[in-house]
Amino acid sequence: MENKKVTIYDLAEELGVSTATVSRVIAGDYPVSEKTREKVQKLIDKYDFRPNAIARTLSNKKSRLVGFITPAITNPFFSQVFVELEKYALEKGYSVLLGNTSGNREQESHYTRILLEQQAEGIILLGGLINDTIPDPHGVQELIEVQKRTKLVTINGKIKSVNNSSVRTDEAEGVELIIKHLVELGHTKIGMIGGIKGITTTDIKVHTFKKELEKHQLTFHDSWQIYSGYSIKSGEDGFEELMSTNETLPTALIGINDMVGVGMIKASKRFRNNHFAFVGYDDTILAQTSSPELTSIRHPYEELGKIAIDMVLDEGPVRDVILSPKLVIKESTMEHVLQQ
Amino acid sequence: MENKKVTIYDLAEELGVSTATVSRVIAGDYPVSEKTREKVQKLIDKYDFRPNAIARTLSNKKSRLVGFITPAITNPFFSQVFVELEKYALEKGYSVLLGNTSGNREQESHYTRILLEQQAEGIILLGGLINDTIPDPHGVQELIEVQKRTKLVTINGKIKSVNNSSVRTDEAEGVELIIKHLVELGHTKIGMIGGIKGITTTDIKVHTFKKELEKHQLTFHDSWQIYSGYSIKSGEDGFEELMSTNETLPTALIGINDMVGVGMIKASKRFRNNHFAFVGYDDTILAQTSSPELTSIRHPYEELGKIAIDMVLDEGPVRDVILSPKLVIKESTMEHVLQQ
Repeated sequence: MENKKVTIYDLAEELGVSTATVSRVIAGDYPVSEKTREKVQKLIDKYDFRPNAIARTLSNKKSRLVGFITPAITNPFFSQVFVELEKYALEKGYSVLLGNTSGNREQESHYTRILLEQQAEGIILLGGLINDTIPDPHGVQELIEVQKRTKLVTINGKIKSVNNSSVRTDEAEGVELIIKHLVELGHTKIGMIGGIKGITTTDIKVHTFKKELEKHQLTFHDSWQIYSGYSIKSGEDGFEELMSTNETLPTALIGINDMVGVGMIKASKRFRNNHFAFVGYDDTILAQTSSPELTSIRHPYEELGKIAIDMVLDEGPVRDVILSPKLVIKESTMEHVLQQ
Repeated sequence: MENKKVTIYDLAEELGVSTATVSRVIAGDYPVSEKTREKVQKLIDKYDFRPNAIARTLSNKKSRLVGFITPAITNPFFSQVFVELEKYALEKGYSVLLGNTSGNREQESHYTRILLEQQAEGIILLGGLINDTIPDPHGVQELIEVQKRTKLVTINGKIKSVNNSSVRTDEAEGVELIIKHLVELGHTKIGMIGGIKGITTTDIKVHTFKKELEKHQLTFHDSWQIYSGYSIKSGEDGFEELMSTNETLPTALIGINDMVGVGMIKASKRFRNNHFAFVGYDDTILAQTSSPELTSIRHPYEELGKIAIDMVLDEGPVRDVILSPKLVIKESTMEHVLQQ
């Protein structure tokens, strides 16, 4: 019996008492009047109250559990952050349970409630609501409540009115590094494909893209910047749109992430037009297995994960940490001679 | 207050009673003697008993929670199964929490305990212990205990002595399809790279590989079958070993999975030897983004996920379902003229 999970039934059996007796003892040892009981029960029913948090509260046990909520675990960027974060949590004696929302805001809120109910000592958000440029007020209110009940930490996004600790990679700096690299290679005609307007990560990248072009005295072409989403398909669609709506084409194309980057490469092969320099963002496994291998911006994954977990465990004040990304140059910007 | 999570504090405040009173009521309404209390408490300490399951048991509420434990969520095969399974669970009103073990058996056991404690209505295992050809007896005993307390479902693996429902894709059939395809293309010299001896999925693939070569009257070359693991690096390493230890080379190479497949493609480019036909396994995102795109075996992901969840929700007897995979032919076996 030492090594397996003991239940209330095991305890009751060994003591020769009822399970009710065991549970009463765990909850408190004073009598309660019928009248009070009824009053409480009515309220419990009214609110559909789920009581499993109570036992833990009474036992003063910490859950040593951290929740991680993300919209798309099939995107290697999100899974790479998760794995680093989990590795460090385990070192610290914590487990991480992951809720994947498939981009559904209701599901995001649902996982938050589940994790609170499981007494998670912290909830880490990566993507979703925290990246909406204009977040839903109801969702924001919910996060404010979450922050009162557990440690809330956000990665690569933050809502101003929610006072939580956050860690992020400087996405503006990432785009600056890309433009600098392309300009050094002689590119003057640069496009940006993918993302969704109104998502902070996209908005920051597109804004910085325009700013950097101006800084380098290059022209921003409206039809060379196409919002098409975040998937491989988004990269293919964006590339096709670019080809069909432009007579003059750019020489370099930046994908909003690696999935869009490899999608563009895929589409360019169908068009037998492989003369573009391509850049991705996130430097995931996809950037390493595509052909040509994709020049990309690398997040400091290990540090992101460590800092997020430290923020959950810290007793200190709320803080915001910004990390620098790194440009990783590969074949996709180096193998073709630039066609001026 | 209607729409947010109500706590014991909210209830106590609204009633004007102490939180202890509320929790006593939830646990039971009879008095308990000091002597009994002490007796129970001692046992609780002895077993490090975590009592949060009790409240739920008492309230007769179902958790509507399913746990999913897997060794490598960064492998797109695992994340693709997870996403399909989760999509269907949500339709059924269930949430899925994921525990990633990074291949660590202790962590696997730890997540199992956490999910039991959270009253998961089912635990689904994909990879890990259930794929050990000779599983650790202690781990097996633990799974037998799990199966008594919640629905245990395994995907693509099963331990005979644990009487749980399982669903899997027929891996032997997958390898048969690959060999048939390669033989039809005229290949007579075929190698298999990757995997680890003693893991059921690898053992089935290698065993079937040998059997199919014999069936087609082809020779199995010991030095063309290399165990090198499951990662992209494993594919690169396996390819390099093949090149360095063989004078005669095969014309077609099968990777134990897509990661190994794209790793081999990567390495073959460094060797400027791109005349191989390559095949992967799992038909993940990597098989679609590599260049050449990788011929691979596709699991019926959606069906795998649906059946696993149905097995958790079913009241019926234990059952084992075997699904057929599909060969998805792409450039990697079609673009080069075979060098005989």
